[in-house]
Amino acid sequence: MANILKGKEVVKKVKESMKRDVKDLNNRGITPTLAIIRLGENPDDIAYERSILKNCDGVGIEGEVYEKDENISTEDLISLIEELNTDNNVHGILIFRPLPKHIDEDIIAKTISPLKDVDCMNPLNLEKIFEGNMEGFAPCTPKAAVMIMDHYNIPLEGAHVVIINRSMVVGRPLSMMLLGKNSTVTICHSKTKDLKGFTNSADVVVTALGRPKYVTDEYFNEKSVVIDVGISFDENGKMAGDVDFDNVSSKVEAITPVPGGVGSLTTSILLSHVILAAKSL
Amino acid sequence: MANILKGKEVVKKVKESMKRDVKDLNNRGITPTLAIIRLGENPDDIAYERSILKNCDGVGIEGEVYEKDENISTEDLISLIEELNTDNNVHGILIFRPLPKHIDEDIIAKTISPLKDVDCMNPLNLEKIFEGNMEGFAPCTPKAAVMIMDHYNIPLEGAHVVIINRSMVVGRPLSMMLLGKNSTVTICHSKTKDLKGFTNSADVVVTALGRPKYVTDEYFNEKSVVIDVGISFDENGKMAGDVDFDNVSSKVEAITPVPGGVGSLTTSILLSHVILAAKSL
Repeated sequence: MANILKGKEVVKKVKESMKRDVKDLNNRGITPTLAIIRLGENPDDIAYERSILKNCDGVGIEGEVYEKDENISTEDLISLIEELNTDNNVHGILIFRPLPKHIDEDIIAKTISPLKDVDCMNPLNLEKIFEGNMEGFAPCTPKAAVMIMDHYNIPLEGAHVVIINRSMVVGRPLSMMLLGKNSTVTICHSKTKDLKGFTNSADVVVTALGRPKYVTDEYFNEKSVVIDVGISFDENGKMAGDVDFDNVSSKVEAITPVPGGVGSLTTSILLSHVILAAKSL
Repeated sequence: MANILKGKEVVKKVKESMKRDVKDLNNRGITPTLAIIRLGENPDDIAYERSILKNCDGVGIEGEVYEKDENISTEDLISLIEELNTDNNVHGILIFRPLPKHIDEDIIAKTISPLKDVDCMNPLNLEKIFEGNMEGFAPCTPKAAVMIMDHYNIPLEGAHVVIINRSMVVGRPLSMMLLGKNSTVTICHSKTKDLKGFTNSADVVVTALGRPKYVTDEYFNEKSVVIDVGISFDENGKMAGDVDFDNVSSKVEAITPVPGGVGSLTTSILLSHVILAAKSL
């Protein structure tokens, strides 16, 4: 049976560190504050918002929701963001994506101050990730994958890591982060031939396919470390990762569960960025 | 004997296309103009400048050299760039790197207008490459590698490309460009274990090590396509690539020579960016 790399322990560590930081900030008269912009009433957004606010409460971050009509004009949205950019009581700005179709996401991304861009939307912050500069804000999901591997001392230096995803929210930033760890990185995707050949020869495989239970034990060997970033729902509406956990966990060296793995960490990372922003002021 | 992928043919094609574009621009009363900023009298810079000016002449681009003392202050350099940014008769700005140590390259990179940034220094342009957006300016060397492969119809879709380099001027941007071609990409570097294992199993290998003739036929198989981005000088002062050409070319399927390969294309790509900038005005 594989070593199960649970997110819980990492979340605990991050939260404890945040609480200490909040105490320090409070002593300096600062309440770290996250402004959340929600356009319309998408149930997913509302659920995510609720979870963020609950987590904010837990560590002493103030969460302020700016609920706007989904038909808001680009100009009005820019004005709101610019107001929040200059508001010294706001340290982080999060806007739920995808944005309504009539709004140009590129313009909005550039409008968010790089110093308050806790979800790493601004191209200036993304470019830092491209360079391997991890001092600022990084996209939360790939950062969660790296943190969970760090926490469980998965050797990354010189390791061959195969990433199945080439998006701007997972695969591309993760590959750059792992180069910073001195891993040899292979980026696979839907056009990859012989995916099994790549995953079987890797030390670590990170999957973010979004196909529930698609990846079976044939993809791995006994030494494989499997980091499952996929979150989807199986035919019974039950949350599942990309990896067929029951089948794979009996074979490999280590594996993250879904739920309770990488995904369980992302909100804590987002909030840690709010504190980083507040400390940097 | 391998198919020799010479840069010459590609250069010819790019230059012909540039001449046509210059004619069109001239008809609109526009002379595409490149401003070159050189700080001090580094012989490498002067040699590169001479080559650029000669190439400018050949296609009808105006090259203007701004030679400044190498002790120029950051403020004065910023002023010069800002002047060129707003000068409607200047379409591209190139500044020779590395900059003197007292100047903050990050600030200078951000100062160059993204619309005139023909050498892709500005983080906003680099971030586009990270996303796989190739519509603007791309770093010239990785773009040259891709163009030479395109010209010789090297199949990249679904191909496994191994890149030996993880820098911001070659490996990182090239990996993103190749994802856009639907290649499976592996990024190797000095900490990679079993480099030969990776290169031997690849369809295409791109090397940018900077070690003359370091890579021998043991790294390749009979089907390998070898793209040599390295430019260095051997013990006799003769220009050489990373690859031991005589040894490797008798084994592999195709190979770029050094000199006369990837490196011979970069200046033409730089100049094509000046024309792109002039056309976009």
